[in-house]
Amino acid sequence: MITVSIITIGDELLIGQVVDTNSAWMAQQLNKAGIRVKRRVAVGDDWNEIWRALDEEFTFSDIILITGGLGPTADDITKPLLCEYFKGTMVTSQEALDNVVYLFEKVFKRPMTERNRKQAEVPDTCKVIINKRGTAPCMWFEKDKKIFVSMPGVPHEMKGLMEESIIPSLTKIFECAHITHRTLVTFGIGESMLADMIQSFEEALPAHIKLAYLPNYGIVRLRLTSSGINKIKIDQEIDHLFIQLQELVKDYIITNEDEPLEKVVGKLLLSRKETLATAESCTGGYISHLITNIPGSSAYFEGSMVTYSYLAKEQMLQVKNETLITYGAVSKEVVTEMAKGLLSHLKANYAIAVSGIMGPDGGTVDKPVGTVWVAVGNNENILTKTFHFRFDRQKNIQLTAMNALNLLRSFILQQTK
Amino acid sequence: MITVSIITIGDELLIGQVVDTNSAWMAQQLNKAGIRVKRRVAVGDDWNEIWRALDEEFTFSDIILITGGLGPTADDITKPLLCEYFKGTMVTSQEALDNVVYLFEKVFKRPMTERNRKQAEVPDTCKVIINKRGTAPCMWFEKDKKIFVSMPGVPHEMKGLMEESIIPSLTKIFECAHITHRTLVTFGIGESMLADMIQSFEEALPAHIKLAYLPNYGIVRLRLTSSGINKIKIDQEIDHLFIQLQELVKDYIITNEDEPLEKVVGKLLLSRKETLATAESCTGGYISHLITNIPGSSAYFEGSMVTYSYLAKEQMLQVKNETLITYGAVSKEVVTEMAKGLLSHLKANYAIAVSGIMGPDGGTVDKPVGTVWVAVGNNENILTKTFHFRFDRQKNIQLTAMNALNLLRSFILQQTK
Repeated sequence: MITVSIITIGDELLIGQVVDTNSAWMAQQLNKAGIRVKRRVAVGDDWNEIWRALDEEFTFSDIILITGGLGPTADDITKPLLCEYFKGTMVTSQEALDNVVYLFEKVFKRPMTERNRKQAEVPDTCKVIINKRGTAPCMWFEKDKKIFVSMPGVPHEMKGLMEESIIPSLTKIFECAHITHRTLVTFGIGESMLADMIQSFEEALPAHIKLAYLPNYGIVRLRLTSSGINKIKIDQEIDHLFIQLQELVKDYIITNEDEPLEKVVGKLLLSRKETLATAESCTGGYISHLITNIPGSSAYFEGSMVTYSYLAKEQMLQVKNETLITYGAVSKEVVTEMAKGLLSHLKANYAIAVSGIMGPDGGTVDKPVGTVWVAVGNNENILTKTFHFRFDRQKNIQLTAMNALNLLRSFILQQTK
Repeated sequence: MITVSIITIGDELLIGQVVDTNSAWMAQQLNKAGIRVKRRVAVGDDWNEIWRALDEEFTFSDIILITGGLGPTADDITKPLLCEYFKGTMVTSQEALDNVVYLFEKVFKRPMTERNRKQAEVPDTCKVIINKRGTAPCMWFEKDKKIFVSMPGVPHEMKGLMEESIIPSLTKIFECAHITHRTLVTFGIGESMLADMIQSFEEALPAHIKLAYLPNYGIVRLRLTSSGINKIKIDQEIDHLFIQLQELVKDYIITNEDEPLEKVVGKLLLSRKETLATAESCTGGYISHLITNIPGSSAYFEGSMVTYSYLAKEQMLQVKNETLITYGAVSKEVVTEMAKGLLSHLKANYAIAVSGIMGPDGGTVDKPVGTVWVAVGNNENILTKTFHFRFDRQKNIQLTAMNALNLLRSFILQQTK
């Protein structure tokens, strides 16, 4: 099977100033195309380290994809290094220069500097692939039947190049295996309990089929993976096993596709032609953000009232001041009033309301950091639940959002239509 | 200088099912402690690949930190591999077992399975570090004066171990250099233009001081880095250079600390004892989410109305139906009415209102995907601006949020207090 190494270059990756989201995206796309990512390596803007990474990955992989270090500034050394590594000389690529000129004249609409012009220089030992979205050209090198491709690290430039040029070229050159995944998503059960539940299934799996457990924020995804040349055969086999797996964990499945919970809820609403609104205190708009991240969510999402202060809860959601004073903002009574206030304001079928203490400050003895109340419901009925998370602010926010969405999902499924 | 390699283990990293946020966090913390991350390597749950990574990193780095592959399920092979790599035998660690029992009895409050009990088994060639947050123990190995530490990949478990045990132990063993960074953040200027503006400064920098450009969503961060044994000396030198750099780019600086724009805006509001509310259409609560991610934001953030539908804009913000029909939801007139409606509802000093088309659908010839209107203002004055982004949904949402926050920042700075 054809294998890839991904090398990402940049000091910012090694001091933790940015999170590398490029590699995950690249791996996903390559995998779909039947190309297996074997290793990912991140190195700094350091001549020796980059050289060493090229040497090592060249030894073990068929394709080496490189991102980063192609900017116009002095800290970017990838291009001169590749020029030396592939024993070339720097020349101006007319095609790349035309692209830079076009971008400045027509897209950026600002004057081009000498520094920008220099971005059109490339080693004469590479094939240039034009980067329509940016000034740094993509460079394709070949050595001993192995392929090296250097791309800019700017995510949307890299993505355009991968989708439009690199993956199509690679699948043309190599006979790629077919890789099939089937993923289901469970909620509300731990990894160990799941493993016990499906132990005999797992032990009986053929050697070429892998099962992986992917836990995250109350969710565990189970993924079956198979690969081979005969697409029909491996798909049939994996589908058969996937049905067995679904049956074994059916009480916990929220979807049998690899999709986020907010999409599962969205599809459910869409199929019922119903709508949702949220009233968020402690999550500060995060639930609403998750929902609206999904294209097409305007069909089922009405809006959200993020009521961070007492006053906002009273003014926007008609929560009674007395209720806030008597029970506190983080209480069953307040989230119930928030949900009712929301539904009386907005013409949505369902409401989610949340209030909690996310930390690091704001906890008390009675209500420590991580205490959350959630209400979900409609005009007939409001269901409430309390949670106690034990994590940092970000994780508490995420867990609150996930649990609130899942509570709504269960609530909707109990409604007759 | 002491160097670290980070090895992350898990098939999910190589098929792109998860984004690796652990490495960035680890790198940040190590860096602060004066330990330089030299390389990061991600490999799958594959015996040979893990072995090869251990061998390679052992050759070049002083410390090898390993995360992942310690779960209780069959796809997790890191522990038996480390047992063989360090020529040990598996034994039950009483201390680790006590921790597992404690967690199930007191924290998880559910029955412990045999699979959970097995997590207390470790190679007898390691020193066990108790993981208070989870059942997989952390293992510390030493070989030829080099240190290998294996941790679980669950972020909050790994973070607890790093902060409480691993970094303190490492800094005790090694005499760590002092690393100093100074970062400033610019908005609204490209990387090349910045580089031209500070070219002579950059060329005159001493060899041991590095300058990096970190572009992201309209923002470019400039980072100066120095390292050495004498903390006072290197801090003085870098502070002196940092003042020069700030002077050179002063028209574009939004902060001279490494902090996100939403924190800059928050600090500005806090210093003026003023408050903010947002009315969000296309960003769907993302601006509100960014603001409330910052601990303490309740002191200056009142709330948000996420008005995704026409009806929500009318009902929640009193946008006139006529205005929506005449100008469309994405218009100067509508965002102005949204901002005014918000301020009349909520007792905030400032408002941000946004409406736009984020894609992939919804664009028209007149208003293609990426068209955005933003209004910022107070009761006296509303300022509007239009933007045209050219990216995918996620990036359009992020760019809208960043530009709206920056427009508000400028607006606030123009107000006398």
